[in-house]
Amino acid sequence: MTQPIITGSSRLRRTPYSEKVEEAGVKSYTVYNHMLLPTVFKSLEEDYFHLKRAVQVWDVSVERQIEVVGPDALKLLQMTTPRSLNKMKDDQCYYIPIVDAKGYMINDPVAVRLGQDRYWVSIADSDVIYYFKGLAEGLKLNVNVFEPDVNILSVQGPKANILIERMFGKEIVGIKFFNHKKIKFLEKEMIIARSGWSHQLCFEIYVDGSSYGEPMWNELFRLGNDLDVKAGCPNLIERIESGLLSYGNDINSTHTPYEAGLGRFLASGISENCLAFRSLKNKTKPEKMIKPIQISGDPINPITYWVEIKNDNDEIVGQISSAIWSPDFDVNVAIGMVNKKFWDGKSNLYIELSKNDIREIFVKEKFWS
Amino acid sequence: MTQPIITGSSRLRRTPYSEKVEEAGVKSYTVYNHMLLPTVFKSLEEDYFHLKRAVQVWDVSVERQIEVVGPDALKLLQMTTPRSLNKMKDDQCYYIPIVDAKGYMINDPVAVRLGQDRYWVSIADSDVIYYFKGLAEGLKLNVNVFEPDVNILSVQGPKANILIERMFGKEIVGIKFFNHKKIKFLEKEMIIARSGWSHQLCFEIYVDGSSYGEPMWNELFRLGNDLDVKAGCPNLIERIESGLLSYGNDINSTHTPYEAGLGRFLASGISENCLAFRSLKNKTKPEKMIKPIQISGDPINPITYWVEIKNDNDEIVGQISSAIWSPDFDVNVAIGMVNKKFWDGKSNLYIELSKNDIREIFVKEKFWS
Repeated sequence: MTQPIITGSSRLRRTPYSEKVEEAGVKSYTVYNHMLLPTVFKSLEEDYFHLKRAVQVWDVSVERQIEVVGPDALKLLQMTTPRSLNKMKDDQCYYIPIVDAKGYMINDPVAVRLGQDRYWVSIADSDVIYYFKGLAEGLKLNVNVFEPDVNILSVQGPKANILIERMFGKEIVGIKFFNHKKIKFLEKEMIIARSGWSHQLCFEIYVDGSSYGEPMWNELFRLGNDLDVKAGCPNLIERIESGLLSYGNDINSTHTPYEAGLGRFLASGISENCLAFRSLKNKTKPEKMIKPIQISGDPINPITYWVEIKNDNDEIVGQISSAIWSPDFDVNVAIGMVNKKFWDGKSNLYIELSKNDIREIFVKEKFWS
Repeated sequence: MTQPIITGSSRLRRTPYSEKVEEAGVKSYTVYNHMLLPTVFKSLEEDYFHLKRAVQVWDVSVERQIEVVGPDALKLLQMTTPRSLNKMKDDQCYYIPIVDAKGYMINDPVAVRLGQDRYWVSIADSDVIYYFKGLAEGLKLNVNVFEPDVNILSVQGPKANILIERMFGKEIVGIKFFNHKKIKFLEKEMIIARSGWSHQLCFEIYVDGSSYGEPMWNELFRLGNDLDVKAGCPNLIERIESGLLSYGNDINSTHTPYEAGLGRFLASGISENCLAFRSLKNKTKPEKMIKPIQISGDPINPITYWVEIKNDNDEIVGQISSAIWSPDFDVNVAIGMVNKKFWDGKSNLYIELSKNDIREIFVKEKFWS
């Protein structure tokens, strides 16, 4: 079958960088938060090798920001996440599971603290803004919730520090992981964070105002020319190797943070001010969890739907949600949800890729990078 | 530029009918509520002529249902819509604007009443489920909110009544517009409604359970074979001709129901139990509104981004959000938001499609069909 094209529509918003991304030869898009996200430039493998060797600029405008501002901002945010925000400082970013009152995940954003009463929530693919609005309106909280005109450009790869130093100076390169700092671009104050959706050296520039988009893009490419800077995008191979979860793929609103393997972010306890406090207290020892999984045999095609994992007795014991061939590790790498009994990797487990292609799989202890 | 393809991903859910839709030769998809929605089979024009002449079966699974059930179901629903639900009967469907507390639209679904305490909300493209959940949890309402496994098949076109009569009998064909009735399929009770996203004769089968999907599809094609039944989808030309709004394209969360031209659904007043009652009371006479617009000159390409409308003084007085050439009406048909001063159609107004293509436009009183 020919692969269907995606129909242009103003409902699927373009970004301030879409023209640039198309000039750079984007081959394939996905839709994320009602907006276009590039997925392939040259090929998944060529993009992957370049990402690990040089430096890329990613249009991740789809990481929409929800601004939560006002005297009740912290209160509202804490109601929706079990991770305690008490010790969060003004220059910190926190990866937080957002849960409903029953403790099921409805997003897994990065929260950016801009001040005691002001946060940006850099969201994964769901309109969690309506959850904040519903709670705020129901409880008559003193808070304003809206989507500012912020469109992130991410700078990724081993040479990211060189490019960022040329753009913003040495003190910016030194930011600690998941901290942010102020920068100025064309006289406009913005923030930059040491974060990003890869396991490479990465920075995210919170480009504040669409009109700064193209100038920022152009300047990064001008200064990175000799570094072989290229337009890139989140890479399916690299993100599976490093175990970066994709909300909607690997986890969804039927999973708790513990099932998603995010218990480590809750090691100091569940915040008592989270609406799901009581529900989650009883769910800290999940019966199934996200695990790294190796698939045996020849290189597979990327998995784009859930594949059941079965044991010797033909019982379903989990599913694989993301999988692809890793050229660097020379194995098929995967992410999947596995029943507790099979975490030790000692059972024979299988998946059926097609009628004639049954593969043995192995539950691993760690992701590859 | 080659048109980018859409990357397969389990995050962009396939439907129970995706295999059938692909066998039928779907050429292009969009993403709607995190799910695949076909947009073109043969071509926009061929699909259009067939829709107006024969009968089509549409996979509109993307119209996800939100089930709102429990003693506070009606209370919750009424909080979110200014349209009074007081007189709604158990066999009725209501087109309702859903608004936040400030009166801005966050969805425009069809609400289906299944009983005094049980509703399905058949949503447009936004995760409005989180708004319901936020309100319900904030106010501790006695209600359950979830997405059931319901995947609508729509039967559309002048011969829809013949096909529906063959499937479900004469009494079903006679359903009044925006009413629904019970049917049985393979011993399973489901509902069917006289509704749909076209101006043709149409029915929506709320296929209740994914496993019934393929059997229902196959039976419709078996019984409709001599009627030239074909797989179809919402058609851009037909929906603009008939003025069917697309949430996210024509209207969004910056617009009130009055600006969206939905004041006629609120003619008997704004429900006092809607959270936006006070805000909307002052917004009943909007300064801009959705209007039918004719674009002069030769056939245009479909508009896939907002195009500014300007007057003789080069002032922006609105924007066109959807537009295409209509073969049947022999003009370019469009939907756009226009400032009040220009509703009378007496001013000279223009749009710039490209540097060398300036078109005069005319604000009309009525849509074409």
